[in-house]
Amino acid sequence: MSKHKHHIGLIERYRDRLPVSASTRIISLNEGNTPLIQLQNIPRLIGKDVDIYVKFEGLNPTGSFKDRGMTMAVTKAVEEGSQAIICASTGNTSAAAAAYAARAGIKAFVLIPDGKIALGKLAQTLMYGAEIIQINGNFDKGMSLVKEVADHAPVTIVNSINPYRIDGQKTAAFEIVDDLGFAPDYHCLPVGNAGNITAYWKGYTEYATSRVCSSRPVMCGYQAAGAAPFLAGHPIDDPETIATAIRIGNPQSWDFAWAAQKESGGWFDKFTDEQILAAHKMLSQFEGIFCEPASATSLAGALHDIGSGKIPEGSKIVCTLTGNGLKDPDTAISQCAAAHPVTIDASLDAVKRAILDCL
Amino acid sequence: MSKHKHHIGLIERYRDRLPVSASTRIISLNEGNTPLIQLQNIPRLIGKDVDIYVKFEGLNPTGSFKDRGMTMAVTKAVEEGSQAIICASTGNTSAAAAAYAARAGIKAFVLIPDGKIALGKLAQTLMYGAEIIQINGNFDKGMSLVKEVADHAPVTIVNSINPYRIDGQKTAAFEIVDDLGFAPDYHCLPVGNAGNITAYWKGYTEYATSRVCSSRPVMCGYQAAGAAPFLAGHPIDDPETIATAIRIGNPQSWDFAWAAQKESGGWFDKFTDEQILAAHKMLSQFEGIFCEPASATSLAGALHDIGSGKIPEGSKIVCTLTGNGLKDPDTAISQCAAAHPVTIDASLDAVKRAILDCL
Repeated sequence: MSKHKHHIGLIERYRDRLPVSASTRIISLNEGNTPLIQLQNIPRLIGKDVDIYVKFEGLNPTGSFKDRGMTMAVTKAVEEGSQAIICASTGNTSAAAAAYAARAGIKAFVLIPDGKIALGKLAQTLMYGAEIIQINGNFDKGMSLVKEVADHAPVTIVNSINPYRIDGQKTAAFEIVDDLGFAPDYHCLPVGNAGNITAYWKGYTEYATSRVCSSRPVMCGYQAAGAAPFLAGHPIDDPETIATAIRIGNPQSWDFAWAAQKESGGWFDKFTDEQILAAHKMLSQFEGIFCEPASATSLAGALHDIGSGKIPEGSKIVCTLTGNGLKDPDTAISQCAAAHPVTIDASLDAVKRAILDCL
Repeated sequence: MSKHKHHIGLIERYRDRLPVSASTRIISLNEGNTPLIQLQNIPRLIGKDVDIYVKFEGLNPTGSFKDRGMTMAVTKAVEEGSQAIICASTGNTSAAAAAYAARAGIKAFVLIPDGKIALGKLAQTLMYGAEIIQINGNFDKGMSLVKEVADHAPVTIVNSINPYRIDGQKTAAFEIVDDLGFAPDYHCLPVGNAGNITAYWKGYTEYATSRVCSSRPVMCGYQAAGAAPFLAGHPIDDPETIATAIRIGNPQSWDFAWAAQKESGGWFDKFTDEQILAAHKMLSQFEGIFCEPASATSLAGALHDIGSGKIPEGSKIVCTLTGNGLKDPDTAISQCAAAHPVTIDASLDAVKRAILDCL
């Protein structure tokens, strides 16, 4: 047994449910094992008797849920002899790919859309030493190029069409059940490329099949209004939203996500940037949890559906927060009225006055 | 027993070693339980037979080790009936104070130095809804003002002179011993206000006294060359370093830090911004771990002392990485030559060429 009781990565933790063998060299940054935090103030503020938990995936090593898939994808790429990986990314996937490639000692190429990457994500990808290829096109164009180029160059695709990504990501569902002792009634997720809703459903289904839990949650997939192909019923061409992590018009896991929705009795819905940012600010201000804008789409949807009664009182709800708020400080700062605090004299009187004015 | 096996916060986990009672309302964001990651590539690169582990405190809820102390300090402030907390901060303490105050439903005031706060930290403090008081003075001036004002206004100080902060922070030493099964031979830390080296030493000492571990590490405290009062032997007036989290000239835990150094047979040393940034980049590029610039001071010092033989081969070394790299994306980006990637055509040929040029 490992001496690292608490901080083994997710492959070691769930090795019997993942496609690795005893001889596989595991590429890990001790990802997973993220906090499941019960909201204490927001249910009271909205006056509803619900248990809302957030799965704070922003506390993975590179700050997003992508690390779960990437530890698997890079482990398998290395096992298969690959010397380079490639992905198209709005930022989080590229950061994860770059970090795990650095850990493995192989090369990472990331295709990013021109000028639409949050600052923190670009900083990470650069620091981890990836080769950044910026294209004059959006995420969907990058994705189709990655698929083409993998046929013409010795690189392994690590986007979520890589099946190992989904296998790694499903472990988040395992952790939730292991923590709660049961599956939640509802699981709410932001939906961009739709790999995560696919992965959670796979995880819950495997646990239910093995009788680790006796039920599976209703899956609620929430999109940004300007990037909502599941609501349109078809891919869309020019997705637009401030929630850059889900600014995707042509989701790669289209059929799997529909299957999760149907099999679970769930639904898709869409919310405006204003609704998403309001949920984002609520989480910070009333719970002390700072996530990426896109992450808050899960809470925006949950609050809407709790308010309408679609999610009934008495429910146990998990909202996945896909990324860390520090990924996108600019969007956060632009939301805050007091973003440019005035400077006062460094004197007792001035400071005392400033404090007493607020109390 | 709690159903939350893995994600209870550090007060619940170490409740018998912390000053709380059964009736204390715990203010927690499920902090602590951070990964201890063994470096795999850097020891090989430097050609030394050493086990180096990093304790990645950047994966706490607000992205730094400050959460450990803040869960204790805010829990006790609320227990004592306080409606507001205050701190002076270079950024990480203010983010933690703001988050835990939000979670508790009380007010947070943060005094920040004018114009020297990393972007991510300001974004957090604003989002968590703290009242920011920016003063025309540095951290040390802010600290002395906070101490004065707490005598004249109903606010609880949550800087590390608050003794509960140290109690919370000592749990990082517990976690390391619990993970490894023993105490390391050397523990390397960045030293700014010196609360953390004080806290680790207290934690190791408590565990050794209780025979949870049979030894205590040598404590190595590393400072930035421009902010090195422990090397000067006295407080300094105008600390300057790119490692803003340790840009402190008058450490509050002066005597405790000296005691830790002496009792452990350890030492202080200082490193230039260039040395700190080099270690910062190494960690990202060769291990996939992106920390704050200040955090890398621990590794910069460890590598120096391993190189010189002061830390002998065969040693087991823990370096604390105090904060998340996403706290300071601007410093990271300014370090990277390829910070402004060129944009290429979204065509198969152009992308293929870009890739093959690198392989």
